[in-house]
Amino acid sequence: MNLIQHLDYLFNPRSAAVIGASNIPGKWGCDILNLLLTRGQRQVYPINKNRPEVLGVKAYPGLSDVPGPVDFAVITVASEALPVAMEDCARKGVKTALVISGGFAETGAEGTKLELKLLEIARRGGIRFIGPNCAGHFNTYAGLFTAPYLPPLNQGPVSFITQSGNLGLVVLALAHEMGLGFSKYVSSGNEADLHFEDYLEYLGQDDTTKVIIGYVEGLREGRRFLNLARKITKKKPVIIMKVGSSDCGAQAARSHTAALSGSDELSDAAFRQAGVIRVDEVSDLLDVTLVMLGQPLPRGKKVAVLTVGGGLGVIAADALKKHGLELSELSPATLKKLGSVLSGRWSRGNPVDTSGDISYPCLLPLLEDKNVDAVVISGPIWTPFGFAGLMSTAPWERDYTVSPEQILQGIEAEYVRNLEVTMELMQRFQKPIVYSVWVSDEVKSRIVYQTMAQHHLIPYLTPDRAVRALARLVEYSEYLGIAK
Amino acid sequence: MNLIQHLDYLFNPRSAAVIGASNIPGKWGCDILNLLLTRGQRQVYPINKNRPEVLGVKAYPGLSDVPGPVDFAVITVASEALPVAMEDCARKGVKTALVISGGFAETGAEGTKLELKLLEIARRGGIRFIGPNCAGHFNTYAGLFTAPYLPPLNQGPVSFITQSGNLGLVVLALAHEMGLGFSKYVSSGNEADLHFEDYLEYLGQDDTTKVIIGYVEGLREGRRFLNLARKITKKKPVIIMKVGSSDCGAQAARSHTAALSGSDELSDAAFRQAGVIRVDEVSDLLDVTLVMLGQPLPRGKKVAVLTVGGGLGVIAADALKKHGLELSELSPATLKKLGSVLSGRWSRGNPVDTSGDISYPCLLPLLEDKNVDAVVISGPIWTPFGFAGLMSTAPWERDYTVSPEQILQGIEAEYVRNLEVTMELMQRFQKPIVYSVWVSDEVKSRIVYQTMAQHHLIPYLTPDRAVRALARLVEYSEYLGIAK
Repeated sequence: MNLIQHLDYLFNPRSAAVIGASNIPGKWGCDILNLLLTRGQRQVYPINKNRPEVLGVKAYPGLSDVPGPVDFAVITVASEALPVAMEDCARKGVKTALVISGGFAETGAEGTKLELKLLEIARRGGIRFIGPNCAGHFNTYAGLFTAPYLPPLNQGPVSFITQSGNLGLVVLALAHEMGLGFSKYVSSGNEADLHFEDYLEYLGQDDTTKVIIGYVEGLREGRRFLNLARKITKKKPVIIMKVGSSDCGAQAARSHTAALSGSDELSDAAFRQAGVIRVDEVSDLLDVTLVMLGQPLPRGKKVAVLTVGGGLGVIAADALKKHGLELSELSPATLKKLGSVLSGRWSRGNPVDTSGDISYPCLLPLLEDKNVDAVVISGPIWTPFGFAGLMSTAPWERDYTVSPEQILQGIEAEYVRNLEVTMELMQRFQKPIVYSVWVSDEVKSRIVYQTMAQHHLIPYLTPDRAVRALARLVEYSEYLGIAK
Repeated sequence: MNLIQHLDYLFNPRSAAVIGASNIPGKWGCDILNLLLTRGQRQVYPINKNRPEVLGVKAYPGLSDVPGPVDFAVITVASEALPVAMEDCARKGVKTALVISGGFAETGAEGTKLELKLLEIARRGGIRFIGPNCAGHFNTYAGLFTAPYLPPLNQGPVSFITQSGNLGLVVLALAHEMGLGFSKYVSSGNEADLHFEDYLEYLGQDDTTKVIIGYVEGLREGRRFLNLARKITKKKPVIIMKVGSSDCGAQAARSHTAALSGSDELSDAAFRQAGVIRVDEVSDLLDVTLVMLGQPLPRGKKVAVLTVGGGLGVIAADALKKHGLELSELSPATLKKLGSVLSGRWSRGNPVDTSGDISYPCLLPLLEDKNVDAVVISGPIWTPFGFAGLMSTAPWERDYTVSPEQILQGIEAEYVRNLEVTMELMQRFQKPIVYSVWVSDEVKSRIVYQTMAQHHLIPYLTPDRAVRALARLVEYSEYLGIAK
């Protein structure tokens, strides 16, 4: 059985056992069992010496008592009891396992010995396993969840390998707020058996995974990582937050997941040569994911900024410079076309400051200009009525014959039409259009915003964040030879 | 009349006229008039040649027809008509004005001439004015608002001077999400008369302003700015986002508010010597404001990190290094005290990784340690049930005799008690305690979160953002000679 086949048993098991099954909420053996029982379709076998039933389901005193085959076992017993549990798995012919428990290499020499013993038993039995000292995994497309305490979660194109389960939860929560959905997730723990690189190889060939993101404290197979990355990044983006760059951080990483960081092979240059997008901050992981999913790959780094107000344009211009992008010099023809659709007081240059609403007809001239590779649209705040003053006007002064909701629907229908044309233009010209605008809660419940989220076009909160993300898209496009 | 007395007429006028008053929603002359009429208490006089009433209120054909004195006039007429309007103000003895209209220095030589003419008329008449080419101002404590299209807004200790009205709206919106409230705000526009420095001087002596934030494209009186800042920063923090550092940005700023940026006096070093906290990104403006309002000034840069999970500690450790702070070396006594309250598998060092819930009793030993100047607490996500597994457990498996809401209230009461003790400890030891945790929407409606917001202790989303903000607090404390 090759690695891919093996990991298929991990992400799509037809049967699962929980060794250490419990009725007590808050215990992993209860919470994971509950997830396995209540989501997806599979045979689930609680293993518990003392109880005939756990969570209302027939339990078995030992793995050997289970009638059918077991593709996947979750082991939540204490570290001392783990070798015996793994022996049981080997005897039963279990294909894959998840070892939640800590108390291994991260605790010192004794723990390292125990971890090696566990590995030796698994190898002998042909078992591949996640962990130990981890927080579970999931595959939304199989309804498989072994990670409890998850924030709200949608199906989607992102897969995530994390060497910290807690950081994993933060990223999943932030992603939910940005409308990003997930395919597969794994908290890899100490990586005694399965390494970051194994999951990467699997996700590289996984069709539902369109972007791979990772949180890395240390890579055990740096050279293999780079070789794999070089192949995968030709097909899909790989975005990595690599920490432990400070001495303190490196030491903290060691005591966290027993990871050795700082190999020369993992320098920034090596990452770049393999096409990996390396980010420094947690929020960047998702900011960059969003732009990768929603935008076409630009053919250069010349950017037009379209804004309603000068300050937002200045911030974008500064950010372009800071992140290695360029402000396009617009052609005379473009300036002329813009002049014909804009009022007298527009900026007559790039940033295109319209001194008012962002005039939708500005977009086409900008996209048609061969000096423009991408557009950043920057508005201040997006309320249900766009930038119109209606909401600040006393209701008794409004003489509309239609209800506010009807007006909203009309505006929204126009927004949706504009959005559809915009997406069509993005594809036709293969030029990214990145939005930056603060969005009110009312807008978030509207069809137009949900359509944007569905196409991974939701706006960044500030123009500097939008530009920062766009710069990484350009970097990736340059790596692929599309941008020059 | 000195500057402060003059600006009092701007922020606390007893009477206001709107020259260019209109019934048409979306027009500044309508939206601002509406704000003046519907909020606060004052005499309001719409000026409109053709109508006896505007927005249901008696209108006057000209300023000279207004019966009482006029402290403050809003002028929204087109730029060509402005000199006449300003002459009317001078004749009427108006003290202060707000010129919304653009079409002045930002448009070129002709506009500059018009702007100088406007200034000359105002000077002659003893009028000080905001603008032209701006988006209004407000004073929440006087119920005075001349900036329409505002996001939700609360009263509070922050005052904000911005050279971009649109960027102002974004910052106000982000601030609302962070629970920050405002005292005074001004979009300063072209600053033909009143400069950034004038507002700064006023806010420096304003008692309801505890923190001053600013968005700056260019300062007209760099030396005065630094002299003022040097005095004010001894009493309250001044946090500035200065843009236009790139050539493109500088050029864009010029065409936006006619600002000349890049004076030598405004180098990073000069800002630092005046105690000004300079930030690079929009979100930093508020991240730093939050830490300034909520935290005591630390006496050094040695930081203890308290976390439930290693990855969050590693990220914090890396961020400390990156931002010039240090990871405290905990004393043997502290380690011993921590060992007595933590389970077997904690990290036995800093970051203090508890391998489980953040144990509240950890806090006191850390604060008592003289090697600790500040604490960063980093958890993953904060749901109504803390980190307990209850919510992932099937309801039919919960055998509680009390309702979930009762459980929530019990947990919440405990959180509130812990929070109160924490705030008491912060004050007693004069050591900041900065939180980082993702907060679910349910928690945001809870008393414990609202108490945190009220005391400016709401958590940062990620540990790197928390550390980044803390670093600026240490910088300020060093400037004041409190941190060594």
